[in-house]
Amino acid sequence: MENVSKEHIAEKFRVIQAHICSELEAEDGKGRFESDHWERKQGGGGTTRVLNKGRIIAKGGVAFSAVHGPTPDKILRKLKLEQADFFATGVSIVIHPISPMVPIIHMNIRYFEMSNGTYWFGGGIDLTPHYLDIPDAHYFHQELKNLCDSYHPEFYPRFKKWADDYFYLPHREETRGIGGIFFDRLVADEELSFSQLLSFVEGVGYLFPKLYRHFMAKNAKLPYGEPELQWQALRRGRYVEFNLVWDAGTKFGLDTNGRTESILMSMPPVAHWEYNHTPAPGSREALTLEGLKKNRNWLKTDS
Amino acid sequence: MENVSKEHIAEKFRVIQAHICSELEAEDGKGRFESDHWERKQGGGGTTRVLNKGRIIAKGGVAFSAVHGPTPDKILRKLKLEQADFFATGVSIVIHPISPMVPIIHMNIRYFEMSNGTYWFGGGIDLTPHYLDIPDAHYFHQELKNLCDSYHPEFYPRFKKWADDYFYLPHREETRGIGGIFFDRLVADEELSFSQLLSFVEGVGYLFPKLYRHFMAKNAKLPYGEPELQWQALRRGRYVEFNLVWDAGTKFGLDTNGRTESILMSMPPVAHWEYNHTPAPGSREALTLEGLKKNRNWLKTDS
Repeated sequence: MENVSKEHIAEKFRVIQAHICSELEAEDGKGRFESDHWERKQGGGGTTRVLNKGRIIAKGGVAFSAVHGPTPDKILRKLKLEQADFFATGVSIVIHPISPMVPIIHMNIRYFEMSNGTYWFGGGIDLTPHYLDIPDAHYFHQELKNLCDSYHPEFYPRFKKWADDYFYLPHREETRGIGGIFFDRLVADEELSFSQLLSFVEGVGYLFPKLYRHFMAKNAKLPYGEPELQWQALRRGRYVEFNLVWDAGTKFGLDTNGRTESILMSMPPVAHWEYNHTPAPGSREALTLEGLKKNRNWLKTDS
Repeated sequence: MENVSKEHIAEKFRVIQAHICSELEAEDGKGRFESDHWERKQGGGGTTRVLNKGRIIAKGGVAFSAVHGPTPDKILRKLKLEQADFFATGVSIVIHPISPMVPIIHMNIRYFEMSNGTYWFGGGIDLTPHYLDIPDAHYFHQELKNLCDSYHPEFYPRFKKWADDYFYLPHREETRGIGGIFFDRLVADEELSFSQLLSFVEGVGYLFPKLYRHFMAKNAKLPYGEPELQWQALRRGRYVEFNLVWDAGTKFGLDTNGRTESILMSMPPVAHWEYNHTPAPGSREALTLEGLKKNRNWLKTDS
């Protein structure tokens, strides 16, 4: 097989982790990522890098892992396989900023391969602003579209819809934020080779720090006070609800005896819940809630 | 059928809700339960009563509901039924105290009935101390055992084990707290009549305020400071993890389009997450964690 080896992909992902950490540190200017290495009993391991109490970042995690071993029963059953070894590598990120004016961001890229030859790529980036800002949403989606378009004209519309459907809280009838892109089980075909898919996934990884540095630089200097911090704490509660109730990755990790601290590094430092909290009609908080709907076109209409 | 009617059971539960709220208000001395009535489109409704920022209680919810209509598909599939109407009534409580020295408590009693004649009782009480206190655990379990023993000698051991297994976080290898009792699908048999089961379930409801007033009165006056509050915030994070990831009732409610605010009134006012937090060896926090294991005998050995 002419494909890049799985070890090589893991190495590329490890480099992306290092790049992202140094980019975020540069923009933050104060916080430093600590490294926590861990090994998996059944094979492989990872390095979870965590930044706490920076200038802009309150709590951020950038996790790399490359694990292997017998495929968990849950996956075998889904794929109707008796037995197979698997290899999985990925980079996974959640950043919770100090300022409510800076959005929460999530990024993930992953590659999965089995001894029977099955493989796929997956990943995505999505943005969760505490306060909806239309020009920010335009910028974010346009950048994602530009990257997607350079690989396949159907990527952006397909993956944007996938993100809308995935990052959704049915029990709140809210999206987690303004979405972004989400994709899974990508395999090579006549149109896109294995190498092109790998390049696309790497592209997502490298786009991430550019996007988030943009928001860090632009939004961290915006003024805010106690009411915005209270709203942020409630929105972080929603983030917790999505991740613990609906996120398939979190569920799968906790169900299959994954490394809990690395899975739950996505949790905010603090979250609040208030019974039946309802923002004042017409407030920025209410407008944000009203705006968090599926199937919105976030692209600049003049681009 | 000589059984008490479902409307009568709902009325008994409503009285228990009122009794509990007035008992908790009396002990708190400051907080008052607000009432939020709601109706269910498909039939029935409830009253969620919430107390915020009392003297002892930070955030407490005491919910009553009596709902009916076509049985949700999820239950029909489980019971291998084509179609049936259901009726469900219950009282559900979670109290988060201000002081880390006062435990979190949960209580639930419920009755379910279907048009095909199927019915069952369920419920339980469990205690989640932020700091493990052995005499408190003794007291709590002895009181539960006394109630159980007056109905059936097997109730306490069976329901205590059930609680150990139910209130458990596999991803942390921790129990939620010191357990208590949990039971489900109780039906009348040669040994216990329908009326006796109803009386037992009511007994659980009436025991609750006695137990929690005991802890409110005794523990709220204990001293604590910032370190204890920080630990409490982390333990509240665990409470969130259990409820959102593992609690079958929460899952079922959110999955079947239940009333979100009433289901999630169990959330603490605030929760913290800290990557890889590990209490100092030998500290009260470490001893608490070590103590949160299944299958401990919490009864006084001299009783």
